Parts: sequence; structure tokens; C-alpha cells
Amino acid sequence: MVMIGMVHPGSMGAAVGGLLVEVGHDVAWAGDGRSPATHDRATTAGLRDVATLAALTEADVVVSLCPPAAATQVAEAIAATGFVGTYVDANAVSPDTARSIVDHLAAAGAATVVDGSIVGGPPRPGDDVPTRLYLSGVGAPDVADLFDDEALEVVVLDGPVGAASALKMGFAGWTKAASALAVALRAMARADGVEAALLAEWDRSLPGMRVTERSGRAGPLAAKAWRFEGELREVAASLAAHDLPDGFHHAAADVYAALADLKDTPDPDMDDLMAQLLHGR
Amino acid sequence: MVMIGMVHPGSMGAAVGGLLVEVGHDVAWAGDGRSPATHDRATTAGLRDVATLAALTEADVVVSLCPPAAATQVAEAIAATGFVGTYVDANAVSPDTARSIVDHLAAAGAATVVDGSIVGGPPRPGDDVPTRLYLSGVGAPDVADLFDDEALEVVVLDGPVGAASALKMGFAGWTKAASALAVALRAMARADGVEAALLAEWDRSLPGMRVTERSGRAGPLAAKAWRFEGELREVAASLAAHDLPDGFHHAAADVYAALADLKDTPDPDMDDLMAQLLHGR
Repeated sequence: MVMIGMVHPGSMGAAVGGLLVEVGHDVAWAGDGRSPATHDRATTAGLRDVATLAALTEADVVVSLCPPAAATQVAEAIAATGFVGTYVDANAVSPDTARSIVDHLAAAGAATVVDGSIVGGPPRPGDDVPTRLYLSGVGAPDVADLFDDEALEVVVLDGPVGAASALKMGFAGWTKAASALAVALRAMARADGVEAALLAEWDRSLPGMRVTERSGRAGPLAAKAWRFEGELREVAASLAAHDLPDGFHHAAADVYAALADLKDTPDPDMDDLMAQLLHGR
Repeated sequence: MVMIGMVHPGSMGAAVGGLLVEVGHDVAWAGDGRSPATHDRATTAGLRDVATLAALTEADVVVSLCPPAAATQVAEAIAATGFVGTYVDANAVSPDTARSIVDHLAAAGAATVVDGSIVGGPPRPGDDVPTRLYLSGVGAPDVADLFDDEALEVVVLDGPVGAASALKMGFAGWTKAASALAVALRAMARADGVEAALLAEWDRSLPGMRVTERSGRAGPLAAKAWRFEGELREVAASLAAHDLPDGFHHAAADVYAALADLKDTPDPDMDDLMAQLLHGR
């Protein structure tokens, strides 16, 4: 039995942790100071509460799954405990951020760092298309061996730390920027009085791209906007690292930053979303 | 018989002019100083060469179809001839640019300005999906009546000058920015060693969006890049006019500006395009 620490089990971390429990591993988490909702989620998934990050130094593997903006801070906190096992950063961060996490853990001791990233939603048995966990770095095959579940497809990339993160940046850099682009253009068309005509043209000319649908996911976009902003800043940094234009993703981050202010609006609809973009700031 | 002036018949202008000739109109153009290729195109389409813009003052209608960056200059040149008929700006410009063209022509005389924009390629009889000509402004229905061809579908928008331009900005603001985004992310993935894995993930997760195909149109993108840059700056201005994020389109314009430098590379392939983006500037 392998001991695996999950920091911090949100909906993705709890689902991935639950799969590892199913395989037969001892999956632990540090519950002190976390919300009742997080405790409920972790308990339901079968995770063992060891209270503190310090208690996770006993783990063979620690998996970090957290908002992108917190990834470095979580790595520093684990490094500070003197953890010397395998550290998997599975967050949506730039390759440079992933490499800096190696440095943080190496400075603290002798932990092996594996780069990871997840494409898809929280894995659930029975999903038509399984969620993918991409892994890279010298310890990647060993981490892949921990999983044995059809709900999560593990893909080991032939590359160093940074490769799994780059894959995620390229994927989220398309999907999340495309949605923000559609929303921004729809707001422009609304302000200029041609919203209905634009949606009709999108539907007619580009049915496969589902631009109208993409521009209209008010509820989901508003609920996740606070998390998307940080992820898109990481994508922008990933492009800038190669002197490629990074304005797509700063603009998309700005769209999500504006929408994040809708978090106190219950069940926001399209009018709320458009008003927030056009008049909110 | 209505006399219609076309300035300046590129591939789109020649095709639209040719349809108007088929309807039975007298379609004229100013050939002095234009290239042999332009003369060939205009002659083939049945356009009558009246040599100078001054000779187009006799026209009932002048249609401007030119690169976006030249739209204002063309309007000023027509205004300077004292033209008092109906002026149709059918270019891919921002609503503000379209409105400023009204001002240029009003200052010169009494021309009626109709806002137009075209979605689709040069219209050809037999195309499955006809190209659309959007029109707006008080003179729009009269301009629509000039056309009678299945190869071009004319849509009169219920709005003032600016509406047809806004529609085009919303449409091109999606298609051309999405292609540039896909190309930029593919270049990033190539630089980070995960290009094949990213294309596989795009194909698997988002088959309808055809992101891989969109990222790989090296030849067409390189050939049109010089024209797309100006159009995307107009889209950026259209978003900025409503305080919406305009970075998507400046970034896309930067991608096309880099690719425009490939114009002297015969038949550029994907390696040429990626190298230009990653190392060209």
C-alpha cells in the first residue's frame, strides 16, 4: 500500500483521490482549517484526514491540485515540511512555474518532482470520454503506475518537467480563450445592436464551432471565472516565454476577472453577464 | 441601367462587380495606374475602364471594396471628386471607421452613405453556401435592389451606418482571431516539445472545432496575412470603443504581421510558418 497525500482536495482532487482509494492506496489529506464542504467531499471520497501538512511527510507521493495562483505557495509549504518523496504538481501552470516548483522542492531536500496536468472534468466512472492525466519528468512512469482506473486515462509524455504543463497550457489556452473571445464579441455585437444577426451568422457559417453556445454559458462561466483568470495568466506567460503574442490570454483573463464579480449574483443569466462586461467596470 | 463604380476591383470587387454586370448594370472602374493583374481581372468580369476616379462622379453608386487600412483614404479620394451619389463602404472596418466615412463624404457634398460588409469568399455561382452582403443605413434597401443573384445573398440589417460593420467585426473577430490563436498555441507547443500531443488532444476533445486544421493552414494564412493585420486592428478598435478587452485582436494582428513577412517564401509550409513565428522577429 502506497501512501499518497492530496493537497488540497477540491472537486478535482477529491475525485482523483477517490480513484486512488479505489485502487487500494492510503490517500491522506490535511484537514485542519479547511471548510466543512471540503471535509464532506474528502470524507465521501474515502480520504483519511491527517490534520496537517507536516503529517504528510510520511507519504510516498504528494499530489498538488489547487488553483493555479496557489501552486507555488503549496509547493513551498510542502518543501518547508522536509518532504523527500515524489511531488506531483498537477496544476494548470506554465512550464516555467512547473520548473520553479522543482527548484523549491530541490532546495528543501531530495523530493522527486513530476509534472502533471489534467484535461477534462473531475473523473467519474462511466464517462464517455475519460479525463486525461498527463505526466512528464523522470518519475512520471512510477506515478502512472499508481493509477488503475478507466475513468482516468494516464498519458506519460516523453519529456522533462514542463512538458505536461505545456500540454495543458496549449489546451486550456484554446478552450478558455475561445470562450472568452466569443463572450467579448457577443457583448460588442449587443452594444452595436447586431447581436441576433451575429449569432445567426455564427450558427450558419460555423455550426461545428458552436460559437453561439460558447458565448452563452453564463452560469458556468460566472461560477468558474475567478479560477480561470489565474490559469489564463499562466498561459500568457507560457507564450511570452517564447516571445509569442500573449494578448489573447491577458484579454481572456480580463473577461473572466470582470465576470468573477458576478459570484454574488444567484443564477446569473446572459443579460447579467453582458451587463457586467459592458457596464460592470 | 444603373451606373456603378467599383473601387478597387481586387478578387472580391471583381467578383461582386461581375454579378452586377450579369444583372445588367453598367459597372465601371478607374484603371489608371493599376496593375496588369487588376486589369485582367476587371476585364474578365466585364467591368468598363473609365480611367480615373473623377470619371466615376457620373456613377449613381460607388462601391468601395479595398483593404481595411485603405478604406478611409478611398472615401476621401471619392469625396474629393465631388461625388454626390450613393457611396457603399463594403470594407471590413470598425463601426467608428464606417461612421467617419459618412462624415468625409458629407463634408464634400451630398452623397448618401450605406454601410456594407461581406461574409464569405468572392461570390461564385454554384457555391453551396452563398456569400452574404450585409447592408445598413437609410439607403440600404435601394442598394439591396441592385442585386439579383443567387451567388450573393443580400441582408439588410435594421440599423444605421455602423451596424453592417459591427456584424463583420464580430464574425471576422472570431474566425481570424481563432486561427491566429491556434497557430500561436501550436508554435508554443512546438517550442516546448509537445506539439504532437497537443494536436492529438485537440482532435480528440474538440473534433468539431477543427483546431489542428485551423492551426495548419500555412499557405493561405501566409498569403493573406498582410490584409488580416489591418482588419484585426479594426476589430480591436471596435471592442475598445465599448471598453471591452481588445488584446485578443492585437495579438492576432501581431501573429499575422509576423506571417506577412513570409510573402517572399514560395509555397510556405508549416515549418516555415512556425519558424517565422518563433524566430522571425
